[in-house]
Amino acid sequence: MKYFSNIKIFSLFLIFIPLCILVNNSVAGELKYIEFSQLGNPSDVLEVKEDNSQSLRSGEVRVRVLAVPINPSDLLQIEGNYGIDPVLPYKPGKEGIGRVLEVSPEIKHLIVGQLVLLLGGETGTWRNEIVAPASGFLPLPNLGPLDSNMIEQLSMTVVNPMTALIMLTSFIELEKGQWLVQSASNSAVGGYIIQLAKQRGIKTINVVRREGLAEDLIAKGGDVVLIDGPDLVSQISRATDNAPVMLALDAVGGDTYTRLANSLGYGGTMVAYGVLSGKDATLNTGMTIVNDIRLRSFWLSKWYEIANMEDIQAAFGQIIPLILNGTLKANIDSRFTIDQIKEAVSRAEQSGRNGKVLIMPNAD
Amino acid sequence: MKYFSNIKIFSLFLIFIPLCILVNNSVAGELKYIEFSQLGNPSDVLEVKEDNSQSLRSGEVRVRVLAVPINPSDLLQIEGNYGIDPVLPYKPGKEGIGRVLEVSPEIKHLIVGQLVLLLGGETGTWRNEIVAPASGFLPLPNLGPLDSNMIEQLSMTVVNPMTALIMLTSFIELEKGQWLVQSASNSAVGGYIIQLAKQRGIKTINVVRREGLAEDLIAKGGDVVLIDGPDLVSQISRATDNAPVMLALDAVGGDTYTRLANSLGYGGTMVAYGVLSGKDATLNTGMTIVNDIRLRSFWLSKWYEIANMEDIQAAFGQIIPLILNGTLKANIDSRFTIDQIKEAVSRAEQSGRNGKVLIMPNAD
Repeated sequence: MKYFSNIKIFSLFLIFIPLCILVNNSVAGELKYIEFSQLGNPSDVLEVKEDNSQSLRSGEVRVRVLAVPINPSDLLQIEGNYGIDPVLPYKPGKEGIGRVLEVSPEIKHLIVGQLVLLLGGETGTWRNEIVAPASGFLPLPNLGPLDSNMIEQLSMTVVNPMTALIMLTSFIELEKGQWLVQSASNSAVGGYIIQLAKQRGIKTINVVRREGLAEDLIAKGGDVVLIDGPDLVSQISRATDNAPVMLALDAVGGDTYTRLANSLGYGGTMVAYGVLSGKDATLNTGMTIVNDIRLRSFWLSKWYEIANMEDIQAAFGQIIPLILNGTLKANIDSRFTIDQIKEAVSRAEQSGRNGKVLIMPNAD
Repeated sequence: MKYFSNIKIFSLFLIFIPLCILVNNSVAGELKYIEFSQLGNPSDVLEVKEDNSQSLRSGEVRVRVLAVPINPSDLLQIEGNYGIDPVLPYKPGKEGIGRVLEVSPEIKHLIVGQLVLLLGGETGTWRNEIVAPASGFLPLPNLGPLDSNMIEQLSMTVVNPMTALIMLTSFIELEKGQWLVQSASNSAVGGYIIQLAKQRGIKTINVVRREGLAEDLIAKGGDVVLIDGPDLVSQISRATDNAPVMLALDAVGGDTYTRLANSLGYGGTMVAYGVLSGKDATLNTGMTIVNDIRLRSFWLSKWYEIANMEDIQAAFGQIIPLILNGTLKANIDSRFTIDQIKEAVSRAEQSGRNGKVLIMPNAD
């Protein structure tokens, strides 16, 4: 009963959400999902598919999808630039949030009306409804009434905040007052890193590739914002007053990777988690020997594959409360329906955008 | 008494050693040592200096130097290409072997006639006699009579075998039957790596830059010898029959570093310990993300600086018995006196040489 009343309260907020998400295309039995049958430019290859809803099999759960983000890794995967190509046809989407509509009788830990995080899997999450084994959903605790903004923030839990947390905590343990440097700082991951670092008293140098972002990053808790360029290493030394930078997080690659590696202090660790520039880096290996630079990398998909369940749960246990109390939040750029998928992915690929593009498949 | 009789037996072997080392320039009170006052080409900047022997101060020991190797790191340091430039004037030499001539009364753990390893320090080791605090010498156990060949092998304990052991054991623990790949495999370190790996049942792919070395490296215990080139990665896959290579040890840098990194299996570790090519490497950071490649480095000088005494002693405790029982040995290319230092360093810099160049400052 409590869950239904939450929904009722929640539905009041929806009136204020832009029109596009008020269009509820989901009627009983009508399933809508995104699929691609060839790799390529997302707005060319993505297709909206329809099907009939199926009845639940043993151990399955039916979830209405409320919000799902479009992540850079989704786009790279569709383009065939994400390490391992998907088996086609493929249904994209690795995360999101939904509400339980129906549970098969065997499932005791989920109840109708409950909010759950979507964990991807075979069905993908870019769809209005998911029918999948219960293991595909992470039950959220009874959170009381949540406004649409919080629902949206929670829809982005599984990918970017987890990436930020694991990179910040599992390679080198920075102490209060120590410095880290990151590139692509205006990305969602970049924002979460700023917020998680701030919470721990770790100082951040936030490198971006264009003007006009400093205010937002400082407001998030960033200490220094620098524009990438050939003098980045000396800019960084000046910013820290020559204090050593012990962790670098890079999503850009190429010259940026090289500069971040060169800016690290003795024994410093670099963690690469993306190659937005698409370029190789140049590495002065003599420098890495003299400064004992440690070059590592992070790939979330693999982490989920090999991490043990306790570590995953512990990470969610850290992240979810921080989203709920507002410590962790990402900018939202825009919202689209499933039918608007081509516009949505085009927007998500646009530079100069400042925030995440969401798909809102149901008005709920 | 035992020590003196060892010396007596040992002196019999010396008759068979090439003439150059029979010339004993060391007379009582006559000190001869190498020094450089400017960085540059070793055969230009090295000078032979003479001085009078000094009497011992409290805690000091006088050691007659028997044999010292010329290591690549010595030459790089003289050229100013070894990370941190030495404070000039500087006396080179980081290792060697000697025999105790005199100990100050406070020193109880060293006795006259005892063999000791030289640990470098302010005086350097390229000299006929060292007077230094006892901590500058590692006492060897009573080893019984040692032939000149074993004396020479022990003179090379502190630098190259230690480098090989630490790189092989402290980054990733390879299991029996697993593969490692190394470059500069015909170097002294390369040879020790082959021997230490063989002893552990680890298979080695030994990359070299010229023909004609395979026989020697296979005789040392190497499993595969490959010539470096653009197809190195596929050569390596063929050699291991696609078994993953989990450790790469690189002293060359540049394209070789890149190729070794690209040949590693998922989660593999690269350890750079030299840049013989003097060139930067190109790094496909996307590949490092997908394959979780870990790029590390090793610098022995720093290791001695920061390792704790137990670790250092444990490492010597592993290495010395392996030298004594013949498991670990390096080729000797040639031997020179102190007065022949310019010829010695020229020879040590020569490509095509196959073995270590030694300085033999005393006939003993």
